[in-house]
Amino acid sequence: MTTKTKRDKKDEQILERMRDLAQAVIDIFGEKGNPAVQIPLRSLSNSVFDEESRFIRMGDKLQERVFFHQGQAKRFMQTFLVASACKELLDVRKTTSIRDLFYMTKHTLARGENTFDDQSESDPVLEDLEVTIGALREELHLFASNKGTMVGNLTLIDSGDTIDCRSMGTGGYGIPSIVEEHVVQFKKCEADFVLIMEKDAVWRRLNEDKFWKKHNCIMMQSGGQTSRGVRRMLRRLHEEKGLPVYVLVDNDPWGFYIYSVLKYGSINLAFESERMAIPKARFLGLSSFDREKFDLPSVVTIALNKNDEKRAREIMKYPWFNEKRWQKELQKMMDSKVKLELEALSSRGISFISEKYLPEKIKNDDYLE
Amino acid sequence: MTTKTKRDKKDEQILERMRDLAQAVIDIFGEKGNPAVQIPLRSLSNSVFDEESRFIRMGDKLQERVFFHQGQAKRFMQTFLVASACKELLDVRKTTSIRDLFYMTKHTLARGENTFDDQSESDPVLEDLEVTIGALREELHLFASNKGTMVGNLTLIDSGDTIDCRSMGTGGYGIPSIVEEHVVQFKKCEADFVLIMEKDAVWRRLNEDKFWKKHNCIMMQSGGQTSRGVRRMLRRLHEEKGLPVYVLVDNDPWGFYIYSVLKYGSINLAFESERMAIPKARFLGLSSFDREKFDLPSVVTIALNKNDEKRAREIMKYPWFNEKRWQKELQKMMDSKVKLELEALSSRGISFISEKYLPEKIKNDDYLE
Repeated sequence: MTTKTKRDKKDEQILERMRDLAQAVIDIFGEKGNPAVQIPLRSLSNSVFDEESRFIRMGDKLQERVFFHQGQAKRFMQTFLVASACKELLDVRKTTSIRDLFYMTKHTLARGENTFDDQSESDPVLEDLEVTIGALREELHLFASNKGTMVGNLTLIDSGDTIDCRSMGTGGYGIPSIVEEHVVQFKKCEADFVLIMEKDAVWRRLNEDKFWKKHNCIMMQSGGQTSRGVRRMLRRLHEEKGLPVYVLVDNDPWGFYIYSVLKYGSINLAFESERMAIPKARFLGLSSFDREKFDLPSVVTIALNKNDEKRAREIMKYPWFNEKRWQKELQKMMDSKVKLELEALSSRGISFISEKYLPEKIKNDDYLE
Repeated sequence: MTTKTKRDKKDEQILERMRDLAQAVIDIFGEKGNPAVQIPLRSLSNSVFDEESRFIRMGDKLQERVFFHQGQAKRFMQTFLVASACKELLDVRKTTSIRDLFYMTKHTLARGENTFDDQSESDPVLEDLEVTIGALREELHLFASNKGTMVGNLTLIDSGDTIDCRSMGTGGYGIPSIVEEHVVQFKKCEADFVLIMEKDAVWRRLNEDKFWKKHNCIMMQSGGQTSRGVRRMLRRLHEEKGLPVYVLVDNDPWGFYIYSVLKYGSINLAFESERMAIPKARFLGLSSFDREKFDLPSVVTIALNKNDEKRAREIMKYPWFNEKRWQKELQKMMDSKVKLELEALSSRGISFISEKYLPEKIKNDDYLE
């Protein structure tokens, strides 16, 4: 089976890198030296906005983790403990959650100390491992939570099962958290674009109105901040199938942030941007200008609170929003002092969003990039 | 089409009840009287645990909502405003979210006052309407959020699309929030039971291990507290297909509460129990006795905090947990002073839960009811 071979090959590469890492340490022990691991630094000071590729990238600063060192010995041990658990997952060809990984690696050492006390200790160690061997956690067989659903003009294969996203009823296909090629393969895709929205209720409205059929697209919802699985699915559809990605979020700083992460990645996880970011993702709405454009009554607006204003000011300073059109968009929100939810469009009619708002926005190329 | 006819028939019944409600008011206006609506009281004082049917039921106390009354006139207007929006949904055969309903009915009246200021005002009015005309919100064409996924030995029809839950890949079928017969019909079901778990990560583990295939069942996950759609889906499978329902939750007061709501309903929504509750739902685990039974290391336990202890004491007083076996179960948690997550089973091995824990529990009928 092609699928299996591909998976094995990828797994073999990762295992090889882990073995190299371990062998280097063993070699130094053999020479009675003090082994050290070079770990790329995951911090604000080591993340840069790459103007050319237009996403947040991890810089090349490294930190050293040394074995014979009072302050680093425990973390050193933890790094290899996590690596060993991942190796086990790869060996037995199983996947699991990072919560599970924590339990798999948590135990009490001889002198009564625990390997990990809390998951907040094992998560950063996992991130260290990811950057050190240059593999996403999904490639280490670890999944985040399943989140999001999908319908549209696409047939895919998920672990050998054929999923026709054109006939998934009202529920849709649950987007898995691992959508790498060894799990999910695209079979037949006629769609012209992907529409990703933050809100499940909006997705249901559009699905009921068969928006994806009329406008030949794929529709996803992420239930708030987009999960890793949704981001990778979008990225793959964008890259492999050449589909433009339209983003539909609430008109508030949180909505802008969801879009921002999708497009440029985040500072915390800068090392993943290369595999996750979609620099050409299009912000379709809600724009602060839509209120007038689509004649929405002022009763459906919500006043910005102090926290919203603070967040909006922060977002305005992001280098990737440092463009005239974006500054105008954000300034408009600050000036109007209000925000808007996607549901506010329903004040103009139940299907206003699917029959008027979206078709006009898409037809007029009324988006920000 | 049978589906459409069934739907139309149900809708027609609801519309009839709404018209009756409105006509009664109009009649009294015609007689220059003061119209009043009798609304069943939704409160702790009007909910009882019915020993015979074994779920929480709404009592028969009524409150009167009067039109010519300074304190009630606004609420009276709101009741009919919400009813009118629901009528519109039924008329055009569309469904929407309760957030959308809020926006559909929010507008500014002549004297500058808003019909609703906040969704916290429209939600209880909707609940009033549900109990007054004796219809679930799903029957008024309103949906809650889509939550939960499903796989297993079941084929169903969702809005005309055939969904084979045996070949849904790693993602599964997204359980819609409206699963009433006019949307979802069961086609072919060979499963012997349903296993519902609170955690998506556990569901993924079991799906990867094809637990549902080996043990001929249907597996659902609800991502925390079970949604209305999941509860109705479980209830329908239990009632129409005669399947026992096994519940798998964390060993903590929150897990017990999830089970409790599934089984007996909740006080807030006592009027829905008749359509939602599954009095014979079986609590499979995690039990406080499982720690010793399955030899789980003490390092994976988590100390109960003050809030947990308070919650556990409250739960012990629920009349439906007032049975020797349940009191023993809850007392064991209080005595041991610890709680356990489902993931803690992974300390015994990645697939310990699917290969040892669950098969033994089910085989030995080791559950509480």
